[in-house]
Amino acid sequence: MNYSIIRYILCRVLEVEGIFLALPCITAVIYGEKSGWAFAAAMLLCLCAGFAGTRKKPKSQVFYAREGFVTVSLSWIVLSLAGALPFTLCGEIPSYTDALFEVISGFTTTGASILSAVEPLSRCCLFWRSFTHWLGGMGVLVFVMAVLPLSGGYNMHLMRAESPGPSVGKLVPRVKHTAQILYGIYLAMTLVQVILLLLSGLPLFDSLTMTFGTAGTGGFGILNDSAASYTALQQGILTVFMILFGVNFNVYYLFLIRKPGQALKCEEMRAYLGIIAMAVLLIVWNARDSFATIAEAFRHSAFQVASIITTTGFSTVDFDQWPQLSKCILVLLMFVGACAGSTGGGIKVSRCVALLKSVCNELRCAMHPRSVRRVRFEGRPMDQDVVHSIERFFAAYMIVFAVSVLVIALENMDFVSTFTAVAATLNNIGPGLGAVGPMANFGGLSVLSKYVLMFDMLAGRLEIFPMLVLFMPMTWRK
Amino acid sequence: MNYSIIRYILCRVLEVEGIFLALPCITAVIYGEKSGWAFAAAMLLCLCAGFAGTRKKPKSQVFYAREGFVTVSLSWIVLSLAGALPFTLCGEIPSYTDALFEVISGFTTTGASILSAVEPLSRCCLFWRSFTHWLGGMGVLVFVMAVLPLSGGYNMHLMRAESPGPSVGKLVPRVKHTAQILYGIYLAMTLVQVILLLLSGLPLFDSLTMTFGTAGTGGFGILNDSAASYTALQQGILTVFMILFGVNFNVYYLFLIRKPGQALKCEEMRAYLGIIAMAVLLIVWNARDSFATIAEAFRHSAFQVASIITTTGFSTVDFDQWPQLSKCILVLLMFVGACAGSTGGGIKVSRCVALLKSVCNELRCAMHPRSVRRVRFEGRPMDQDVVHSIERFFAAYMIVFAVSVLVIALENMDFVSTFTAVAATLNNIGPGLGAVGPMANFGGLSVLSKYVLMFDMLAGRLEIFPMLVLFMPMTWRK
Repeated sequence: MNYSIIRYILCRVLEVEGIFLALPCITAVIYGEKSGWAFAAAMLLCLCAGFAGTRKKPKSQVFYAREGFVTVSLSWIVLSLAGALPFTLCGEIPSYTDALFEVISGFTTTGASILSAVEPLSRCCLFWRSFTHWLGGMGVLVFVMAVLPLSGGYNMHLMRAESPGPSVGKLVPRVKHTAQILYGIYLAMTLVQVILLLLSGLPLFDSLTMTFGTAGTGGFGILNDSAASYTALQQGILTVFMILFGVNFNVYYLFLIRKPGQALKCEEMRAYLGIIAMAVLLIVWNARDSFATIAEAFRHSAFQVASIITTTGFSTVDFDQWPQLSKCILVLLMFVGACAGSTGGGIKVSRCVALLKSVCNELRCAMHPRSVRRVRFEGRPMDQDVVHSIERFFAAYMIVFAVSVLVIALENMDFVSTFTAVAATLNNIGPGLGAVGPMANFGGLSVLSKYVLMFDMLAGRLEIFPMLVLFMPMTWRK
Repeated sequence: MNYSIIRYILCRVLEVEGIFLALPCITAVIYGEKSGWAFAAAMLLCLCAGFAGTRKKPKSQVFYAREGFVTVSLSWIVLSLAGALPFTLCGEIPSYTDALFEVISGFTTTGASILSAVEPLSRCCLFWRSFTHWLGGMGVLVFVMAVLPLSGGYNMHLMRAESPGPSVGKLVPRVKHTAQILYGIYLAMTLVQVILLLLSGLPLFDSLTMTFGTAGTGGFGILNDSAASYTALQQGILTVFMILFGVNFNVYYLFLIRKPGQALKCEEMRAYLGIIAMAVLLIVWNARDSFATIAEAFRHSAFQVASIITTTGFSTVDFDQWPQLSKCILVLLMFVGACAGSTGGGIKVSRCVALLKSVCNELRCAMHPRSVRRVRFEGRPMDQDVVHSIERFFAAYMIVFAVSVLVIALENMDFVSTFTAVAATLNNIGPGLGAVGPMANFGGLSVLSKYVLMFDMLAGRLEIFPMLVLFMPMTWRK
């Protein structure tokens, strides 16, 4: 294990975080809030640690998949440890465990909160809380790669370990350029959403924070009732952009290089939009009695479906009150998740489609043992290794899920709360049902449960394996 | 598709069922019950249809995997359609749908009931209800192969489609002899249990029916409170035999041919016993406050763990009242299931172990991409095809599970009842939690839900694929 290069990259990450901590400081200055000092202190700390650690170049450039996994998971942990400081320093979230939970929930774009009310928080805290979503959505190491001159062949290993989805689509030959293009698209879409929200009459601060939550598919709002008190137009904009940020970014790149035909053929996107349409229609039909008009039923179910499948976690109504079929659809969508290569979490539509096709293939092979057919996806035969690693991802996912449920069960909450607390964090959604539903929070859990759920949020965002690797003794051998 | 041979085997199955229907007739004669006429009528019907259909030998002996799958799933459906008749004919279960649910639950060794009370049933009905467990446990086609002179090379295809587990262990070169050995062991163990129960003071009728339920890992009892009113000794005998019938029968064969060393090395059996021990200890610790003494806690938790992991479904206490961790352990065990090659259901211990090992292997490969290691199981490298078909089984299982939950959600029960209704039937356990818990029943569900759960029971017993095959258009092409 090449420790010196890991140390170097971790310190680079701290530097970047230090620079971004300037944003809440500016917010504090604008609104004249005292809590700004906590952010300034954290910023100073990050920058000092960062500069100190990056003055000495790493001794060796050796960098393999092992280093990639460890760097990514440690980066996210360090990022969260530092990012949680200001909340505790300024006293707005007195417990450091709670602050850490909140910030991990932010960076992993989960949106699960330990706060019973967010409105009492200062503006700078609210801004930082939402901004972590934006940073975590596209990935902090992707950002580091896009802006800093990291030489060496290890970019691909980092990208592979941090990007969601079964296979990393390198858009262009150089990883650095891919990272720049991704962040470019991300920034442009963010700007468009902010402008639209401003035009719809939302103040600048609200537009920015809500956009961060949408872009990262995070779900932290700045009002206690999440998105319920916004106008129908504003909720509509949020719905559309949640869906857009859940699409594979390769599609946007194809549009950008004027290949719309190829973009529209993307099988994953079609499946994703198809699932959304079907889910919305089913819920409108099933929960129609909960609303005054069909139009309202449509608006709310579209919002909730978009929010859950993209794993954002905003809500406009307490969907815990809906009939059971609607709730079950939402719980299933929690697992399906958004497209690979988007900012969303969950198992990912492409993995689900690949599994489904793989099952059909198994059936076909069972009928005709001698017919060897490969699973086709996105118009070409899928690499068998990719199919099997998806199947193994699925198994690892279920194992982490089962173990987490057992630990959370120690809380002795009801079954639904236990089950959805894990589902909502491992899939980076935010609210579950019952005691952790959209109108409740995670504040009442024990410290043990909070740490398990923090692990789940990180495991969900980094797609299980990088986090599991930390627990293997062979990882730490020289 | 070779329809003539399928017709031939289906009629053979009806013949066998007709012969076995003599048993409840004898019961009716002994106890002087009028309901016996219904069984006699059904017996006559089965025998006539059977003889008529087997008089003409099949035109062609062509028999491939496709025919194997279809024969097995149709056999189980025909078996159930005929087996449900007497219940409706005698009027003790007036609705044919309910009778079908009860009999499918019996043959698939699920033990889920639509009856709110079983004690009002006549003795012959109770006997047939429990006997279906015994017949379904080891497999009705395995029985047909053991006793009837079925020539041709299609035995292996039938065995493969009906036997639980990822790979069929042929004990001896000829399938017919394997089937005979399996039924021999099964019969011997059944006899030992009956004798032990008789010695413990249980009447003959009770000993027989409870043994059928244990041997098939079914779970139909003859008392409303399942096994709660038996003595501690009798519950102990049931506990031990439930665990024994959940062990891979290959292990017993190895003992039989005097290879105890090899038998004890069986990795699946060790994992199975390890899981049981761990689960019992955890529940004793977690639910200790629900019992007067630790000994009592141990007795009840051992009984419940054995009942759930082997997917039997007997109960001595209302475990719905236990703390959440204990309930979650039981719910997880519902999915794990018993050993492959036993009479138990669920995903099977060997599949779970293989998946776990496969995940560890993936982690190791991720760390050292160039190290190609195979998953080892039972002391030798596992065939990659078997590993992948396990992974695909897991995916198919999840898909059936998700679709079933959505349909059952239309009942608008609470989440736990919806979820565990599917889990309990797809894993062939019997009782779930909540509205379908150990002290409740499935009688209140809609007809649609009942048929979906019947499908799930059959899919669970026949390991998903044979039932899915029925819905593929390519199955029915000539």
